Amino acid sequence: MKKNVLIIGAGGVAQVVAHKCAQSNDILGDLHIASRTKAKCDAIIASVHEKKAMKVPGTFEGHAVDAMDSAAVAALIRKTGAEIVINVGSSFVNMTVMDACIETGAAYIDTAIHEDPAKICEIPPWYGNYEWKKRELCAEKGVTVILGAGFDPGVVNAYARFAADEYLDTVTAIDIVDINAGSHGRYFATNFDPEINFREFTGTVYSWQGGKWQENAMFEVGKEWDLPVVGKQKAYLSGHDEVHSLSANYPQADVRFWMGFGDHYINVFTVLKNLGLLSEQPVKTAEGLEVVPLKVVKAVLPDPASLAPNYTGKTCIGDYVKGLKDGKETEVFVYNVADHKEAYEEVGSQGISYTAGVPAVAAALMVAEGTWDVHRMANVEELPARPFLERLGKIGLPSRVIGPDGVDVAI
Amino acid sequence: MKKNVLIIGAGGVAQVVAHKCAQSNDILGDLHIASRTKAKCDAIIASVHEKKAMKVPGTFEGHAVDAMDSAAVAALIRKTGAEIVINVGSSFVNMTVMDACIETGAAYIDTAIHEDPAKICEIPPWYGNYEWKKRELCAEKGVTVILGAGFDPGVVNAYARFAADEYLDTVTAIDIVDINAGSHGRYFATNFDPEINFREFTGTVYSWQGGKWQENAMFEVGKEWDLPVVGKQKAYLSGHDEVHSLSANYPQADVRFWMGFGDHYINVFTVLKNLGLLSEQPVKTAEGLEVVPLKVVKAVLPDPASLAPNYTGKTCIGDYVKGLKDGKETEVFVYNVADHKEAYEEVGSQGISYTAGVPAVAAALMVAEGTWDVHRMANVEELPARPFLERLGKIGLPSRVIGPDGVDVAI
Repeated sequence: MKKNVLIIGAGGVAQVVAHKCAQSNDILGDLHIASRTKAKCDAIIASVHEKKAMKVPGTFEGHAVDAMDSAAVAALIRKTGAEIVINVGSSFVNMTVMDACIETGAAYIDTAIHEDPAKICEIPPWYGNYEWKKRELCAEKGVTVILGAGFDPGVVNAYARFAADEYLDTVTAIDIVDINAGSHGRYFATNFDPEINFREFTGTVYSWQGGKWQENAMFEVGKEWDLPVVGKQKAYLSGHDEVHSLSANYPQADVRFWMGFGDHYINVFTVLKNLGLLSEQPVKTAEGLEVVPLKVVKAVLPDPASLAPNYTGKTCIGDYVKGLKDGKETEVFVYNVADHKEAYEEVGSQGISYTAGVPAVAAALMVAEGTWDVHRMANVEELPARPFLERLGKIGLPSRVIGPDGVDVAI
Repeated sequence: MKKNVLIIGAGGVAQVVAHKCAQSNDILGDLHIASRTKAKCDAIIASVHEKKAMKVPGTFEGHAVDAMDSAAVAALIRKTGAEIVINVGSSFVNMTVMDACIETGAAYIDTAIHEDPAKICEIPPWYGNYEWKKRELCAEKGVTVILGAGFDPGVVNAYARFAADEYLDTVTAIDIVDINAGSHGRYFATNFDPEINFREFTGTVYSWQGGKWQENAMFEVGKEWDLPVVGKQKAYLSGHDEVHSLSANYPQADVRFWMGFGDHYINVFTVLKNLGLLSEQPVKTAEGLEVVPLKVVKAVLPDPASLAPNYTGKTCIGDYVKGLKDGKETEVFVYNVADHKEAYEEVGSQGISYTAGVPAVAAALMVAEGTWDVHRMANVEELPARPFLERLGKIGLPSRVIGPDGVDVAI
């Protein structure tokens, strides 16, 4: 049992996390949010109050913190009395925030893997480069660390575990499909931090097939999927965090991640990539200014949070999980459909931020209530899936499953 | 009669100008070249010596100068004893270099219109914003200033004058068509300074039609042309310097400039423009660094000079000039075809730099010999065309004309 939450970050996902924590502040206790710019935190808190999202009267305070400074984060954890830290800041701050949690004993939850600003697409499994190096330390100190508890990674890891638990004796393939069939009405925009978004697609695409890492280029392997609600959609084999933990937990299964892209997105991405504008390595202008091209691309693109008011349409994210049941080949599809406009009306964010943020709060509630307060480091598929998915359904993201019989039922 | 030449700039066009001046140093006298970075000047001089381009033994020295600093340029003119300045530096330095010429009495020749880094596509006629404001001062001081003496603007202005002089009583339309049918083998590159190249296409497209300025967007009006050697090519109504002087000298004629573009170029341009990456206005990165997106695009694109070794194919640039002769509608096409590989073999530059640089040297020779040493400011069409075109033919860019009878002859 833990309480009092410190949210790190003040972007679109943090906005969702803040609203969702407020809606459950009877369980979560005092709420705090911290980022480089305190004004952004205050704006999020103001929107929480505007929507009257606080379930019971309570504390919600904003703070300025440099999340790259572990000691500063630890001091803030102590000052606020936070026992749960939800890190939805940039992927570059995971390890410093996690270190602060290990030092103070606070539970740590994040939604994306750690990245080094200077490197792209490191050796698989990615978690082995940073997070898992702290696994023994967490166990030793009894600190709860839940890695990748957004939607993907996060809920899709739980979907794999859920299918394995309830439908299969052995898992032989996990195909995660992420389709955003929504429209933001802008010429081009990324749905979350462009820097992180593009970094996902500029390196080698790693998938786990036939018991080993398979390497492809982005947009090299495409496939049309026919999904509930959003229909037929083209998706491409992509590199993604969850492949790097699911492959360790289900080494006998093929693990692939498929991301939906329209031709227009691919064209813009291809132009930017081929020109070198997605590079994380600095270039020098004729005037001698050193600048990272990707950071300039980020600067000219719409702030993902700004897309929310006009975003319409739905997302469908789910896992096709294949395996054997009583010796027979079996397949199930576990999935969620979310609506951009409904997300905006509830929490002021678009659907991509909503699906990333709500699961982190479900995880925080599981930690607060003890079910997931495991006093060690865990990826989501290593924790009981059904209670998490049920909790998630209650706070806004219901899941469904199309069973081996083809019948589509709510979880 | 003037001699001793100071070249301002050390890019691909400057390389051509340097080689061509060297090939005529018996007439032009001492040669000097200056840019921000002296090493670039020295590299050009080394390539001149490597090709044994100096016609007679003589001086060729490199200098460092900030061409935005008019006093520094004037001091360098005095120090070198240059009586002719060929400015092929960035379009941002025209006025400071011209001021230095006016102050010292040196003749001034450039190949592109002055631009203010902070403004794009100013009120037409563009020359009225900067250069022509110094017209009276030049006349008063007797200083020779030849504006836009590259290929386009420059030779194409002379082509219009040539057609008017030799084939027509009245000019009714001047359509300048610029086709680069060459291939550099890179994913994408601009043929000259990307900053200047893109700036040409991001603003309003001005053409002079029916006695007034017509405004269009870039790529709004396209037309297929069937040209000698390069064949059928699609070109688009574009904004360009020469339209702004030819319209003043031939106000009764429609004056249009058509630039050839492939679909790939248009796609890359469209993506960059729509994203805001071609903006000359600074943006701020998340880290607070102020940076001009266009300068970053320039930094990641290939240096135009680097394209030269592998550039193959030909350019065709010419003027369709229509008008009346003895009351009858008449049309001629005056043009040049240049070859990228031949240009590289001769002067180490690609064809676009070659066609821009050689005419400036022809103009310098005309000034040195007196024919164009007019002691006032002039656009190229205000000066005798035939001797210029003949001079140009002798130093590497022969022109041809398809007459009213359809017969194609050398000029």
